[in-house]
Amino acid sequence: MTDAVSPLASPFPAMPMIAGVTPRVARAGYKDWGRCDLTYVELAEGTTVAGVFTRNICCSTEVELGRENVKRGTARALVVNAGNSNAFTGYRGREAVEQIAGQVADHLGCAREDVFVSSTGVIGVPLPKDKAREGVDQALAAEPCSWEEAARTIATTDTFAKGAVATAVVDGRTVTLAAIIKGSGMIAPDMATMLGYIFTDAAVAPAFLQQCLSAANLQTFSCITVDSDTSTSDTVLAFATGKAGNAPLVSFDSPGADAFAAALADVCRQLAHLVVRDGEGARKFIAISVTGAVSDESARRIGLAIANSPLVKTAIAGEDANWGRVVMAVGKAGEPADRDKLSIGFGGIWAARDGLPLADYDEAPVAAHLKGQDVTIEVDLGLGEGRATVWTCDLTHGYISINADYRS
Amino acid sequence: MTDAVSPLASPFPAMPMIAGVTPRVARAGYKDWGRCDLTYVELAEGTTVAGVFTRNICCSTEVELGRENVKRGTARALVVNAGNSNAFTGYRGREAVEQIAGQVADHLGCAREDVFVSSTGVIGVPLPKDKAREGVDQALAAEPCSWEEAARTIATTDTFAKGAVATAVVDGRTVTLAAIIKGSGMIAPDMATMLGYIFTDAAVAPAFLQQCLSAANLQTFSCITVDSDTSTSDTVLAFATGKAGNAPLVSFDSPGADAFAAALADVCRQLAHLVVRDGEGARKFIAISVTGAVSDESARRIGLAIANSPLVKTAIAGEDANWGRVVMAVGKAGEPADRDKLSIGFGGIWAARDGLPLADYDEAPVAAHLKGQDVTIEVDLGLGEGRATVWTCDLTHGYISINADYRS
Repeated sequence: MTDAVSPLASPFPAMPMIAGVTPRVARAGYKDWGRCDLTYVELAEGTTVAGVFTRNICCSTEVELGRENVKRGTARALVVNAGNSNAFTGYRGREAVEQIAGQVADHLGCAREDVFVSSTGVIGVPLPKDKAREGVDQALAAEPCSWEEAARTIATTDTFAKGAVATAVVDGRTVTLAAIIKGSGMIAPDMATMLGYIFTDAAVAPAFLQQCLSAANLQTFSCITVDSDTSTSDTVLAFATGKAGNAPLVSFDSPGADAFAAALADVCRQLAHLVVRDGEGARKFIAISVTGAVSDESARRIGLAIANSPLVKTAIAGEDANWGRVVMAVGKAGEPADRDKLSIGFGGIWAARDGLPLADYDEAPVAAHLKGQDVTIEVDLGLGEGRATVWTCDLTHGYISINADYRS
Repeated sequence: MTDAVSPLASPFPAMPMIAGVTPRVARAGYKDWGRCDLTYVELAEGTTVAGVFTRNICCSTEVELGRENVKRGTARALVVNAGNSNAFTGYRGREAVEQIAGQVADHLGCAREDVFVSSTGVIGVPLPKDKAREGVDQALAAEPCSWEEAARTIATTDTFAKGAVATAVVDGRTVTLAAIIKGSGMIAPDMATMLGYIFTDAAVAPAFLQQCLSAANLQTFSCITVDSDTSTSDTVLAFATGKAGNAPLVSFDSPGADAFAAALADVCRQLAHLVVRDGEGARKFIAISVTGAVSDESARRIGLAIANSPLVKTAIAGEDANWGRVVMAVGKAGEPADRDKLSIGFGGIWAARDGLPLADYDEAPVAAHLKGQDVTIEVDLGLGEGRATVWTCDLTHGYISINADYRS
């Protein structure tokens, strides 16, 4: 956590504890930063789990093991190390993760595979095993903490703690979802993202939990980008303790399944937006709506080509309605487009329609829109029914300052 | 041309005039900038032509017509407008290009299709026809100018004039190639690039000229990137006047064909490097060598993923040997890679081999290397024989400053 808070920061929401979920934090000292950096979340017996992970080929051991373990569908604990991603550290990194899982499994009397471990921070430095052991010991003995404390403890370059909450009525009972997430740079999730954790007291069969999470992911985490760089450690896990006492959700035929899936998607969308709002150096939150594409997937790819364009992002930073750069980004996306059917707008006002600048285009209201913190870009391809919305932030001097000397 | 010259600038070389090629410049006044902005190059009868163009779907009329006309293989003139790319301007933009081609064709008594027109600058503003007509009139009556003057006149945000020269002995005669180029932002050529023009007095059949240019392009312009954004106007044209009097080159079986192809590739490499050396905000020239990939094309894609990563580029800007970010970029490239066979180095010194940080890695010489202006990154995938070198620059505050208020 850095001192200068993002101007787009959202206050941490009032988040209830979830029955069967107990977070604790400790100071392992992975970096010399005088703050807690190890988060331990104990989960009641019977908790189910689902997850989505980075597609980066050079992923961390944590991601490899998580991807494997999530197939079993059960979980008893989560450990998150901040300050060191432990990625690209070979057998030494793997030993550290196995040690942590073993230590927690011994304590709880559960299978090692029920302990999920994530790490975030610098790549290429093996997680120090001694610090990890002491940190886990401390955490196992610590008092339970608040969600906000847990959210602060999983953070690295984040400038504010990020949480989201939603409820749904399932089988006559109100179930609650509480979630925390970290991330602000190296954000271009490829069907997965960052470190995000969703906890619910609903009873949900693991396969259905996975189905809901994967679907939500496609419309949320897979539609955000800060800098086009896909992390080696991206992970989102959803845990369901079942303590709400509803009849377990096993498919969309289960009563309340739609409400639960909608609440889960809502939480994922909140979390995804929070990450963009803390994009490194971000001063503006940009929503890009693409319509008229040949398919939803094509619309998403075009949206991401715009959202990843340094020239579009610097134009928005400069409050410049430079729609020519949007045209350029559409054209380089590698997706079907027809220059002479293309329309571009800002803040709901078209600047160009059907491949031509509008003769009566009045830039004044667009300029006023771009001065705000929340900017929208509208693109209509005029080809089909495909649509998508993606979210990003502007590219400013702050991004350069943060990343030109992060490790040093 | 801006005032603050890139620290990586190269002096303009001594460039001879090419028999059959006469450059002239004029002030059309496309922008209120008190400099020449229209370049006219007259080519002798019998001149052959080849070209490569942007793959951006939203390309300009100039690119569409150029791509069509180059198939005929003959050329008599080139007109380059600076300050307005005339892209995304519909029928109004097309009328302006046709007017220019007609005006020059009437003057020379040649086919309109033998007049090649390029435009560079802001997207989405139709090229003003009255200014174009006056500018062409001026240029047709102007005294011939130097290559350096022509190179300055095709430039926009460039900070220095860019030229390259090479010679080859063909059929017992020395042929000369002289070339100019502009470009510093919106540079991520997709099999083509920017605005570049190569002139030679060699006699070369158009099909063979195209073969040589396309091959050279793949190893030069297609291997550079400044900001991952592919322009709507990228064009490289090669013109051969035949005035050297050699027996025309028609294939690699023609005497001297290898020498000519090598000289052409040399000029293309020089031009490509000059563009990177003028990358917007660039302070370091970065060469990325990828070896051990499954194919040359796979190596090139991995190299470009590294070269386009904002996190790698900011790390180099900060003189930080953050090889973890290189690992990340390899992993997100979408190409075959095996984390545990991957090796990463800087300045010829390995930091990690076979998926592990080197135990005896000494960062001091690497840190010294990164303080220089010329930085190399070595990546070995350990999978096959594929190799490629790509070139880029670092990402600095200068890029943000230039692009957050270019148009305004």
